[in-house]
Amino acid sequence: MNDRDLHAHLINQQGGRRSFNTPVLVIDLDAFEKNVADMAAYAKASGLRLRPHAKTHKCAEIARRQVAAGAVGVCCAKLGEAEAMAAGGIASILITSPVVSAPAIERLIALNQKIPDLEVAVDNPDNARALAAATGSGKRLNVLIDVDPGVRRTGVASAEAAVALAQAIADLPQLNLIGVQYYCGRQQHIESYAERRTDIIDRTDYLRGIVTALTDAGFAPGIITGGGTGTHRIDVELGLLNELQTGSYVFMDRQYNDCDISGEGTPGFATSLLIDARVVSANTPGLGTIDAGFKAMSTDGGPPTVLAGAPAGAPYHFMGDEHGLVLFGETSPPVGSIVTLAAPHCDPTVNLYDFYHVVRGDTLVDIWPIEGRGKSR
Amino acid sequence: MNDRDLHAHLINQQGGRRSFNTPVLVIDLDAFEKNVADMAAYAKASGLRLRPHAKTHKCAEIARRQVAAGAVGVCCAKLGEAEAMAAGGIASILITSPVVSAPAIERLIALNQKIPDLEVAVDNPDNARALAAATGSGKRLNVLIDVDPGVRRTGVASAEAAVALAQAIADLPQLNLIGVQYYCGRQQHIESYAERRTDIIDRTDYLRGIVTALTDAGFAPGIITGGGTGTHRIDVELGLLNELQTGSYVFMDRQYNDCDISGEGTPGFATSLLIDARVVSANTPGLGTIDAGFKAMSTDGGPPTVLAGAPAGAPYHFMGDEHGLVLFGETSPPVGSIVTLAAPHCDPTVNLYDFYHVVRGDTLVDIWPIEGRGKSR
Repeated sequence: MNDRDLHAHLINQQGGRRSFNTPVLVIDLDAFEKNVADMAAYAKASGLRLRPHAKTHKCAEIARRQVAAGAVGVCCAKLGEAEAMAAGGIASILITSPVVSAPAIERLIALNQKIPDLEVAVDNPDNARALAAATGSGKRLNVLIDVDPGVRRTGVASAEAAVALAQAIADLPQLNLIGVQYYCGRQQHIESYAERRTDIIDRTDYLRGIVTALTDAGFAPGIITGGGTGTHRIDVELGLLNELQTGSYVFMDRQYNDCDISGEGTPGFATSLLIDARVVSANTPGLGTIDAGFKAMSTDGGPPTVLAGAPAGAPYHFMGDEHGLVLFGETSPPVGSIVTLAAPHCDPTVNLYDFYHVVRGDTLVDIWPIEGRGKSR
Repeated sequence: MNDRDLHAHLINQQGGRRSFNTPVLVIDLDAFEKNVADMAAYAKASGLRLRPHAKTHKCAEIARRQVAAGAVGVCCAKLGEAEAMAAGGIASILITSPVVSAPAIERLIALNQKIPDLEVAVDNPDNARALAAATGSGKRLNVLIDVDPGVRRTGVASAEAAVALAQAIADLPQLNLIGVQYYCGRQQHIESYAERRTDIIDRTDYLRGIVTALTDAGFAPGIITGGGTGTHRIDVELGLLNELQTGSYVFMDRQYNDCDISGEGTPGFATSLLIDARVVSANTPGLGTIDAGFKAMSTDGGPPTVLAGAPAGAPYHFMGDEHGLVLFGETSPPVGSIVTLAAPHCDPTVNLYDFYHVVRGDTLVDIWPIEGRGKSR
């Protein structure tokens, strides 16, 4: 069955969510549409460019909808994701991780020829020179200096290193330095708004020093891109970033639902990403085994939240690749009944599926392929 | 690029492992072949049937090699995996998890028509009746009674429930009861052989009681299938199982390498599954960020082992979807250099990749598609 046949077949399923062959990754379209519109409106009202991170959803249909709502383009974590988004019609893409291997750089340069605006993060002069050499006399490549907020993952580690890298890039006519990137990953999931704000004020002061050093050296950054769903309101308040890379707001997950994102004691966005699973065994009173384990959800974010089909908030325990145990309480569930979960961590959970089942209520209205699934190269 | 073109393209890569576009999932073919041969020889010498669990590798080429070495067929965790193995030419498949949803049962019956021997685990009478109803006047379906070893995941929870289920199956002429299944998952990774043996003796006594009850009721099981890489030598010693479901022995992983599997203080099998990653950032003395994070390895088994490209045993820390931090010690690594890891837990790690890069030493000799990747339905 090719993709088009599969799509038609799935759309023609008549039974709705109760008859899905579980486990499936579900998008609640009403909640999703509200999230896309709300973030677009917030960025517009704040005067910031919005470049949502497609590493969250890995899906060209969602990227197109974000752009249609006002985004300037998307971010991708990896080149393979960027190729998938470009094939899906996205014209402006920022790759937020360094691209260093020779075969990957070759693909990067090919992609730069194909779309109007390709941008890539760089964090050392050798990599900048390798990108320039591969670009040759072709179209100039847009680069941003990745600044490490202190996590020691990627990025230049000091103002001096930022200036030295800017100078190295300026010496390479094949590259076009368009700005800096700054992602404070550690701060995104601090549950208290006030504590998160205190941390981000400190980290933003650090970035301001780097921007000042770059400006003083003659490399004033045009684009200052970063932020995430957890910090975007604080980033707007602090006024240094001019482009937001928020990703998870489209879906939300257990980790972000535990946070006061709005500053008003609420997550601020609706849970639109769901996992429908099914009870496959119930031989012990009060317990039900569902068909959703390590292959249905990533485990890095802890357990999922049980939303429906069991008492709200019923504890879930991973039971291997294919199964999870739900504590139903007094009564055992019927074998075959559906249990709906919120993903613990949306990005790597999405990476386990080939498509979304898109629903309004209990009606399947579309199937969206996850073209960027597995594109870690 | 279709699969055949991709295969040809990849095989034609000339640069060997140093030029792989990382991260990639690698099979060391020498180690792999030895593992396949060693387990086959051990099962043969012990007089047990070997039915390796394909949930580990999800790859028809590997299943075919296991059968060629003497296995009677394979196990699959899910129907989707079984469909993939059947399409790859495997004639005898046991599905080890209950199949309960109506659309899945429909596919199960279709698969039963296609291959000589399909077998499925059942753990309650309602499910048996649903399977029988769907089978109708078609080819009889082989079923095994799944016995819960006490983990409350799947399986009947008592001897009485086993006998009642056997009676229910006997009343359904569409079903053919061929045996019992018993998987002691909790015991597999007990690191001490002696402690594992003590536990398995206790659990095998429990199973012996169930087998006796079934026999006394006129349902003597022909096949008694179970065991895993961790317990298979003890299972052979205890002499109740007559079919082994070992899976991870083909690859090994950090979890199993931590165990005395042989009873002689060693894992007993070689690490044949590797992840080649690359240093993509090294801006802090002694640290290197590699391009392998949540999307390159499952996190349920803890961190991977660093095998090469850094000081042996160098600590690794997950740093999000795409990255991990390796503590190199005194010196920083060159950006672009390769770091080779052993997976923390092989099964869900394999589920993240579309194919294996098969090597002898540093030479790429084949690409094997992972047809069962993502087949959780």
